[in-house]
Amino acid sequence: MSYLDAVRWNADGLVPAIAQEQATGRVLTLAWMNREALERTAATREAHYWSRSRGRLWRKGESSGHVQHVREIRLDCDEDAILIVVEQAGGIACHTGRARCFHQRLDGGAWRIDEPVLRDPKAIYGD
Amino acid sequence: MSYLDAVRWNADGLVPAIAQEQATGRVLTLAWMNREALERTAATREAHYWSRSRGRLWRKGESSGHVQHVREIRLDCDEDAILIVVEQAGGIACHTGRARCFHQRLDGGAWRIDEPVLRDPKAIYGD
Repeated sequence: MSYLDAVRWNADGLVPAIAQEQATGRVLTLAWMNREALERTAATREAHYWSRSRGRLWRKGESSGHVQHVREIRLDCDEDAILIVVEQAGGIACHTGRARCFHQRLDGGAWRIDEPVLRDPKAIYGD
Repeated sequence: MSYLDAVRWNADGLVPAIAQEQATGRVLTLAWMNREALERTAATREAHYWSRSRGRLWRKGESSGHVQHVREIRLDCDEDAILIVVEQAGGIACHTGRARCFHQRLDGGAWRIDEPVLRDPKAIYGD
């Protein structure tokens, strides 16, 4: 049996995949993988996801250069969530130019952004 | 507007919620929250989730005693994933008696459990 068959894909053929930065322990992103995304991630050791908004496979960093080099791929106890441990190229995982996507913190009943933009998205993606 | 309205709940009224251990940085679990789960988590500072298998709200640790004391609640850039930073009571997050749910590692094309059972589930939950 392939390791891909052990994963409990949801009705859309996807599982949530968490990316954690190896050096800092920071949780960078939560994205989604289909079977092909996980297979390519494992084969190439670069994170691939399924973009639900664009409806296509997506190699993280393909536009931004902010590739995630995969050091470890983990599965949870009920086989429906993935954790990948990565080195984040450029130290920027988020399309907003921040280190990670989880940059809003609940504070006094409101979400407040508490992490800086490290690079202007226009400089990352072009205008 | 309530902070709850900023969250992009999915068609089932849920968002994935990652629990990360504050002291170690370990990613413990991925579970799901509905509006009430997030509200109670924020109000009580103890993690609450929506159990999809049981179809009910669930206070983490209600049976096991392995409560998650919440130190931080974060939201991602597209408002459809939550990260909570917790102190994990008992140092055990997983129903298998392991520190975390992500205890299977992809190794040579197969998932291998590489983390020990810290406490027998029978001792945690009773027979």
